[in-house]
Amino acid sequence: MTKVAIIGIGHVGSTVAYTLVARQLCDELVLLDQDKDLAEAEKQDLLTGQVGRTGAVAITASKPEELGSCDLIIFAAGDITILQNNTDRFAELTYTRTTVEQWAPIIKAANFKGVILNITNPCDVITQYMQQLTGFSKNRVLGTGTTLDTARMQLVVGNHFGVSPNAITGYVLGEHGNSQFVAWSGVRVGSEDITKLSDANTLAGFEDAAKADAWHTIKAKGYTSYGVADQAAIVAEAILKNSKLILPVTHYNEAVACYLGHPAIIGKDGIIASTELTLTAVEQQRWVQSANKIKDMFGTLFVAAS
Amino acid sequence: MTKVAIIGIGHVGSTVAYTLVARQLCDELVLLDQDKDLAEAEKQDLLTGQVGRTGAVAITASKPEELGSCDLIIFAAGDITILQNNTDRFAELTYTRTTVEQWAPIIKAANFKGVILNITNPCDVITQYMQQLTGFSKNRVLGTGTTLDTARMQLVVGNHFGVSPNAITGYVLGEHGNSQFVAWSGVRVGSEDITKLSDANTLAGFEDAAKADAWHTIKAKGYTSYGVADQAAIVAEAILKNSKLILPVTHYNEAVACYLGHPAIIGKDGIIASTELTLTAVEQQRWVQSANKIKDMFGTLFVAAS
Amino acid sequence: MTKVAIIGIGHVGSTVAYTLVARQLCDELVLLDQDKDLAEAEKQDLLTGQVGRTGAVAITASKPEELGSCDLIIFAAGDITILQNNTDRFAELTYTRTTVEQWAPIIKAANFKGVILNITNPCDVITQYMQQLTGFSKNRVLGTGTTLDTARMQLVVGNHFGVSPNAITGYVLGEHGNSQFVAWSGVRVGSEDITKLSDANTLAGFEDAAKADAWHTIKAKGYTSYGVADQAAIVAEAILKNSKLILPVTHYNEAVACYLGHPAIIGKDGIIASTELTLTAVEQQRWVQSANKIKDMFGTLFVAAS
Amino acid sequence: MTKVAIIGIGHVGSTVAYTLVARQLCDELVLLDQDKDLAEAEKQDLLTGQVGRTGAVAITASKPEELGSCDLIIFAAGDITILQNNTDRFAELTYTRTTVEQWAPIIKAANFKGVILNITNPCDVITQYMQQLTGFSKNRVLGTGTTLDTARMQLVVGNHFGVSPNAITGYVLGEHGNSQFVAWSGVRVGSEDITKLSDANTLAGFEDAAKADAWHTIKAKGYTSYGVADQAAIVAEAILKNSKLILPVTHYNEAVACYLGHPAIIGKDGIIASTELTLTAVEQQRWVQSANKIKDMFGTLFVAAS
Repeated sequence: MTKVAIIGIGHVGSTVAYTLVARQLCDELVLLDQDKDLAEAEKQDLLTGQVGRTGAVAITASKPEELGSCDLIIFAAGDITILQNNTDRFAELTYTRTTVEQWAPIIKAANFKGVILNITNPCDVITQYMQQLTGFSKNRVLGTGTTLDTARMQLVVGNHFGVSPNAITGYVLGEHGNSQFVAWSGVRVGSEDITKLSDANTLAGFEDAAKADAWHTIKAKGYTSYGVADQAAIVAEAILKNSKLILPVTHYNEAVACYLGHPAIIGKDGIIASTELTLTAVEQQRWVQSANKIKDMFGTLFVAAS
Repeated sequence: MTKVAIIGIGHVGSTVAYTLVARQLCDELVLLDQDKDLAEAEKQDLLTGQVGRTGAVAITASKPEELGSCDLIIFAAGDITILQNNTDRFAELTYTRTTVEQWAPIIKAANFKGVILNITNPCDVITQYMQQLTGFSKNRVLGTGTTLDTARMQLVVGNHFGVSPNAITGYVLGEHGNSQFVAWSGVRVGSEDITKLSDANTLAGFEDAAKADAWHTIKAKGYTSYGVADQAAIVAEAILKNSKLILPVTHYNEAVACYLGHPAIIGKDGIIASTELTLTAVEQQRWVQSANKIKDMFGTLFVAAS
Repeated sequence: MTKVAIIGIGHVGSTVAYTLVARQLCDELVLLDQDKDLAEAEKQDLLTGQVGRTGAVAITASKPEELGSCDLIIFAAGDITILQNNTDRFAELTYTRTTVEQWAPIIKAANFKGVILNITNPCDVITQYMQQLTGFSKNRVLGTGTTLDTARMQLVVGNHFGVSPNAITGYVLGEHGNSQFVAWSGVRVGSEDITKLSDANTLAGFEDAAKADAWHTIKAKGYTSYGVADQAAIVAEAILKNSKLILPVTHYNEAVACYLGHPAIIGKDGIIASTELTLTAVEQQRWVQSANKIKDMFGTLFVAAS
Repeated sequence: MTKVAIIGIGHVGSTVAYTLVARQLCDELVLLDQDKDLAEAEKQDLLTGQVGRTGAVAITASKPEELGSCDLIIFAAGDITILQNNTDRFAELTYTRTTVEQWAPIIKAANFKGVILNITNPCDVITQYMQQLTGFSKNRVLGTGTTLDTARMQLVVGNHFGVSPNAITGYVLGEHGNSQFVAWSGVRVGSEDITKLSDANTLAGFEDAAKADAWHTIKAKGYTSYGVADQAAIVAEAILKNSKLILPVTHYNEAVACYLGHPAIIGKDGIIASTELTLTAVEQQRWVQSANKIKDMFGTLFVAAS
């Protein structure tokens, strides 16, 4: 039996829960939130939705003692409403650092042996902080990283060329935030290099459009939920089914010495291996810049409050 | 190609959209809301979620001219936050009557030829009002009715007996609201009559528990979404696939002369037929009472404001 | 991770494998057959089918040492081609008894701790024989029984009344063979008793039609596969997901002292409980007759060959 | 409502039918075979399998008059048992040409307006012959081509590198037969060029292994079914959902003047466009050789029998 806990049952966490249930990606689901009435309400709502469907995910709420037997923890304890008046995911850090500090000891105390998948923003910083606070090996703590940004890039490029986004391969790299970039040298439409199909200006336009999509959604809706939930579910599925997909999750990179989004082979133990990146000089520069931004943010966690 | 429009892209409408997309229940989806930025945002969020999945629902936003070629309209233009400070779905009527009055002429003008499935509360009254305002034949306009209440009853009873809610058959009848009742004489656990397994007091307790579940969820979460979306998707699927399931949707009953929740055979033309009800004397009385309450509410639509 | 072994990779066993993979009902699948080339070929064919799909069932062939860590064994080691020239599933027994005798010791030796679901015919006799030879507790050894026959009855009745077969509840009981019977007193169309809708002659006609369907299929196609595989997958899903559905599997009945098809609550430990049967006098008589036929067949297993 | 006809209900055709039903990829399914009892038997078997599942595909058998309203015809009227004693799909041509000649006029006479997806071998030759005999525009007649071979290549390469086959991109090109080849210059493991990871000998080994897999399966099992059915269903889904995936189906190529497997954008009108191929000199040579072999085979169709 596969068992998943979701910590933080806000818009994102509850939509991830709904997605796991709809796609029957686990057998047991544990909902944890500081608001226990909310966790109970979501449990009830999810159970009601399951009636009439084949399959049945067993759902419990507010039982942190269940963490020890979970295969996967999905950490979604952010507060995206902070982003409604900001355009930098860094703005969430002041709040979300406190949620990691609250939950990391609980996860450790539960003797949890599985994988942590973080969605909470700023995703790279929070994932790395979670790894440090739990002391778990780096392969066991990863984040959704630039999987969502990559999906948005695939959508924009697919629309432009009149093909399915699934016919677009390649990755957005770096921060799940403003310093991210598309590694265009590796993007293909079917088997064609995109750099032979579009000039640099056009590519820059695709990149801007993909980034803007996220902010338009957050502005109009107050948050994003379906996109991030489905992409998180794809990573969760790769872990739970040990399927060894290659996905641009945020995970530790030795060369730049921080967590950031780049492709890794994903399986039941988390990160099986990073894949080799082949970047142009310009891309390499953006890669380092993005890493530096993440490290700067990460450093602020340890500055004494005055 | 199967085409569905959702009118009202709030918590319920957007979750229904997500469910239709996740379950690939239609080929095209049209999102309509008075807030066009919101409809566009949800479109974008849903499209992002689809990347990496097989199948592809084509999604458009804010194009009411698409209604004419739709097979199904799901009407979800309510405002459930009204219920956070109330415990009667009737409280929504003052607002939701205006949304029906706004959309019914648009639906008519579009020369729509399919089926309308209403979720908006008070569900029975709004469904009947939609039928009257559009002038469509009664079989083409139905509402989710007591499908959601029936699912909640199945959950409570299933939990009690240690069986899947799907092993419980039978229906909640009448208003999708406080005057609803469980027709216990027809409820079975597997093939056993529940009235032989539990006494009247216990059954009354089940009924209270099932009703209370909805209000607990609304109180803690501010609304319900997953339960209602999945149950609405089951009705939508029966219509779109012409599967002829028997479901307790709200539809017109000649004997009591109003719309209320009771089982009907559902197919691509909406209501194919009502099935015969066999009720005890007590149940018959509650049935009439529930119909009367609905008719009273419906009457208030036509009282001149003073 | 959920792990299933299928023993016997003929038409039925391989179609069950395909169904488990298509519906992602397990994480690991072990294929066992006396023909190791065949098991390897099916593994390869199934793996090829999975490419391009999300999810990934890990498949191994011809490794009986994997049985010990399986949650479920599906036993499908029959030879249905025997039925092409017979109209009694009893005809298979001479062959299939040898396959049980071959595999039961292997299953025991593997220290298997899960549930055995038998499909091999004659289903009731072989399931009971498997239970005896393994010595496992009776709740852990069950068979598909009359689940398939019940589905056929639902189809015939649903077609007659113009409703989905899923709107028909009730069960076929007894032998998965010619002495089976429909317990019409418990069959309902939606919430209506079928005995109030159709007279005894009509009901007898439904029963004959449902039984005939199986034989028509076997005659024209040489075997059945999709119907039995999907129904077996429903039972497997109830076990693997611990969903506590009530299904008419073959399992031991104290009163008649043999295995035969009647409803039970199904979960991860196999049979959680039988549900109470309420039969008419005529149905009770057929129930006993069917049990007697099964016991007679079972007795032939222990008659010394002369 | 989406409507699909399958012509030829042997192992492949019936498994495609089962896959379409299990994945709910159409609303109506028409089964056609020269053996009407078989078509009826498969219909019955498939319908039985659907009981207990949500969704419902309406299935009819032996009604060629339904072809006119179909969106898609899947042509699977081969006899793969011929391959048990051969290792060249060309051996089937003598038989399968007669099935195309039999069905093409029926399809034309039905005033069919949709897309034909051919699976029958030799796939490239039969697809082109079907296009000529029907006179339909070339975009409307395509075949599974090297989609299945590409899946096998992905499996072999994915296994070698310890990643999911879905992490391997690139194509097998040319004949769905012995002259096919992998265009290694375009194959990637994640975002890495495979030609930088493996030398030419290793790549040749992968190619041989992938080709051999098909023949091992055919030899041990007598045919392949699950792999081809699932890959055909992926193409069918791209057509039915208009999803614009890029898949290496067999379709007409102007430069080499024949049908052969190479990537095309697939939608509801069949081939939307071919994508540009970038081949090395060696690959270009194999491409031309494969085309020449196909054209030679095709030419044999028009040699007067003496």
